[in-house]
Amino acid sequence: MTVLPPGALTDPAARAAATSDRSGRPGAEPLAVVRAVDVDHVVEVLRWATSTRTPVVTRGGGSGLAGGAVATQGAVVLDVAGLDRIVSLDPVDEIAVVEPGVITADLDAAAREHGLFYAPDPASAHLSTIGGNIATNAGGMRCVKYGVTRDAVLGLEVVLADGRRLATGRGTLKGVTGYDLTSLLVGSEGTLGVIVGATLRLRPVPVAEATVAASFADVETAAAATSALAAARLVPSVLELLDACTLATIDAAQGTSLSARGGALVLARTDGPDAASQASAVAAVLGATATWIEHTEDAARADELLAARRLALPSIERFGRALIEDVCVPRSRLAEAVRGIEAISAETGVTVHTFAHAGDGNLHPIVSWDPRLGDEVPEDVQLAADRIFDLALELGGTLTGEHGVGLLKREHARRELGDTGLDVHRAIKHALDPLGLLNPGKAF
Amino acid sequence: MTVLPPGALTDPAARAAATSDRSGRPGAEPLAVVRAVDVDHVVEVLRWATSTRTPVVTRGGGSGLAGGAVATQGAVVLDVAGLDRIVSLDPVDEIAVVEPGVITADLDAAAREHGLFYAPDPASAHLSTIGGNIATNAGGMRCVKYGVTRDAVLGLEVVLADGRRLATGRGTLKGVTGYDLTSLLVGSEGTLGVIVGATLRLRPVPVAEATVAASFADVETAAAATSALAAARLVPSVLELLDACTLATIDAAQGTSLSARGGALVLARTDGPDAASQASAVAAVLGATATWIEHTEDAARADELLAARRLALPSIERFGRALIEDVCVPRSRLAEAVRGIEAISAETGVTVHTFAHAGDGNLHPIVSWDPRLGDEVPEDVQLAADRIFDLALELGGTLTGEHGVGLLKREHARRELGDTGLDVHRAIKHALDPLGLLNPGKAF
Repeated sequence: MTVLPPGALTDPAARAAATSDRSGRPGAEPLAVVRAVDVDHVVEVLRWATSTRTPVVTRGGGSGLAGGAVATQGAVVLDVAGLDRIVSLDPVDEIAVVEPGVITADLDAAAREHGLFYAPDPASAHLSTIGGNIATNAGGMRCVKYGVTRDAVLGLEVVLADGRRLATGRGTLKGVTGYDLTSLLVGSEGTLGVIVGATLRLRPVPVAEATVAASFADVETAAAATSALAAARLVPSVLELLDACTLATIDAAQGTSLSARGGALVLARTDGPDAASQASAVAAVLGATATWIEHTEDAARADELLAARRLALPSIERFGRALIEDVCVPRSRLAEAVRGIEAISAETGVTVHTFAHAGDGNLHPIVSWDPRLGDEVPEDVQLAADRIFDLALELGGTLTGEHGVGLLKREHARRELGDTGLDVHRAIKHALDPLGLLNPGKAF
Repeated sequence: MTVLPPGALTDPAARAAATSDRSGRPGAEPLAVVRAVDVDHVVEVLRWATSTRTPVVTRGGGSGLAGGAVATQGAVVLDVAGLDRIVSLDPVDEIAVVEPGVITADLDAAAREHGLFYAPDPASAHLSTIGGNIATNAGGMRCVKYGVTRDAVLGLEVVLADGRRLATGRGTLKGVTGYDLTSLLVGSEGTLGVIVGATLRLRPVPVAEATVAASFADVETAAAATSALAAARLVPSVLELLDACTLATIDAAQGTSLSARGGALVLARTDGPDAASQASAVAAVLGATATWIEHTEDAARADELLAARRLALPSIERFGRALIEDVCVPRSRLAEAVRGIEAISAETGVTVHTFAHAGDGNLHPIVSWDPRLGDEVPEDVQLAADRIFDLALELGGTLTGEHGVGLLKREHARRELGDTGLDVHRAIKHALDPLGLLNPGKAF
């Protein structure tokens, strides 16, 4: 038996906990779990892994939706959640330096003490770590205006598969020396290196916000209204769409009556010194075809209006097991995508709830099944999910807008990347991790 | 003698033209120049290069400032400037698909017909091509608010060294399938592949603009005032700083009297529906320490005020030869950087004019010499430039904010990247271009 690295936990509870994330797709029991105490410990684990040829799966908050951080057979899980210090936060340069285990919402809260915020806001912000957000290039509602995680990462501290330490990027707002290794590592799902530090860009908190909610007869009309906002050159900071199926399920779970107002709901937020006048302009565009509309600058009322979006997934999960999908299409094709998903649901008989970051064309079709059928994804559910992936590619889109490929979407990712693309991925993987030790079998 | 690829030009004029760019650092005469007529032609040249082991230097507008596209000994120069079609421009998705030879300003003009603009605005926008902008990750005045070229590139069409075609990225606003090969290629200075197409993000034209110009007693006061804007959480769309030496030279060349108003000039622009009120807020902050200030919403007057920045480099070049440097520091250290550059100028006796994208901490020290000394960079000028690079690294900055490394900054780039960083660069270069044919000796 192999000697394990320092600090390795082999008790069944620790090993079992590392087999799952929030994707619902379990991995396998790892050899052991190591909770890193500092960067030297990470280096030590990777040197050990190289010398023993042991695969390493890096893990943070365990909130992933694609199986990217679940343990695999024979691997050691390297848990970096304990490296959770905000090392520095410079309010003039608007830059924070953090360890990977910092909870996303905690960084945002720390920045707000200085009138700044951390823009990427995945729905899991209270559970997920910055390291995990970087590994998946996480998005969120605000990225329609403020960009995704990649846009917030200026530099990284990384430990390579062989234990060497690599600093990428810079501590300045611009810089073009060398290749953009920072962006290469962002979204690489733990397959190229272990992130042990990040230099992040913060942004000034908008001085005001306003919120608009509008119901529409059906999802096509709603999607057309969101396209009309783009055509009017309005740039909301949040632009969400919920379909009839999702509204009905929220009503059933929460006792609301969203469905009574229309068959689709659009939620928009504007920000900046002219938030109110922008919101009026948004309301004028949406109001042209809406069945109901409300428009507020009151923060408490805005939270009530936005609650529908926040409660969508918990409401759906109350009634069934779910695959949370994440396709993205050109935003002009949003209505086609929603219609196509409805057709797939009708043809397969599988329930699909859809809500979307409409401003980005990023849809979350939630493909669900009766929990009495068990934990395994039923065949018809997988078929419906596969057809949704096909639809996204046909519409000129991508499999995953913000959750990553992980274990769930590998086969489809190969199709999206193409043969030459896959060859280049393998060559880059080999360049950084020649023994193939980092998160094998994930991402592509 | 090697048989040259189809369309190869070997006449002395074509070959000589490929030895220079706007860096003032000449390369060597190439074997031949090939003006690509279409993508198949590019593929053919690269297959030929692979089979004959001939280096290939890709070239666009020839407006580079770091020698990245100048010919090298024994190479074929692949000129893609003729691939200059805007293939499509979708005003709803706010996306353009272009060939690499499109002139940057032409794309911007085409977008403006739809109420959109192309945000990256290098000073060379009327000469430089999109392909060259992508190869260097070009910046400009607007990137303080709208990001650099990388932030505008959603996907690329590339021909690899062996002639294989690779599509990276996507036609959607978000997407995380696979590694971010797009960002890896942006800024790779022609060393990883030949860009033959790009999918670019456009943005809505701001509905209004306002401009503020302010003079200060000295550059420290001016730099502190720009920091005060950041501290007040104001986000101008342009924020430029010119030092006393630059103002005096503009006055001498253009007959203006900028120096009479103060020893440093700050130019700021705001945009959006609240441009005027933002400009008032900017003027209030700058006005607290300014010796002179003006604030206008009139476009013609704004152009007059911004002319100082536009005329800076042409004015300097009227009196001498110049190395155009491009260091970037954390913006809180801008004043230290300017003071340090002044000290280097005083100690070496070499004239250095400095102007800066102050909002990004990106300085352009122009290190100049008497044209009667000839084309070769004099030793003291090189020494002053080297000391400016050292200063930038000491201040936590980078060698190059937006121009690239090219030939000019290779030695210093190695220092900035570090040993492990360099190893990783070499491994990635080897993964994509194992024979080392693409732009050898450039970038790192």
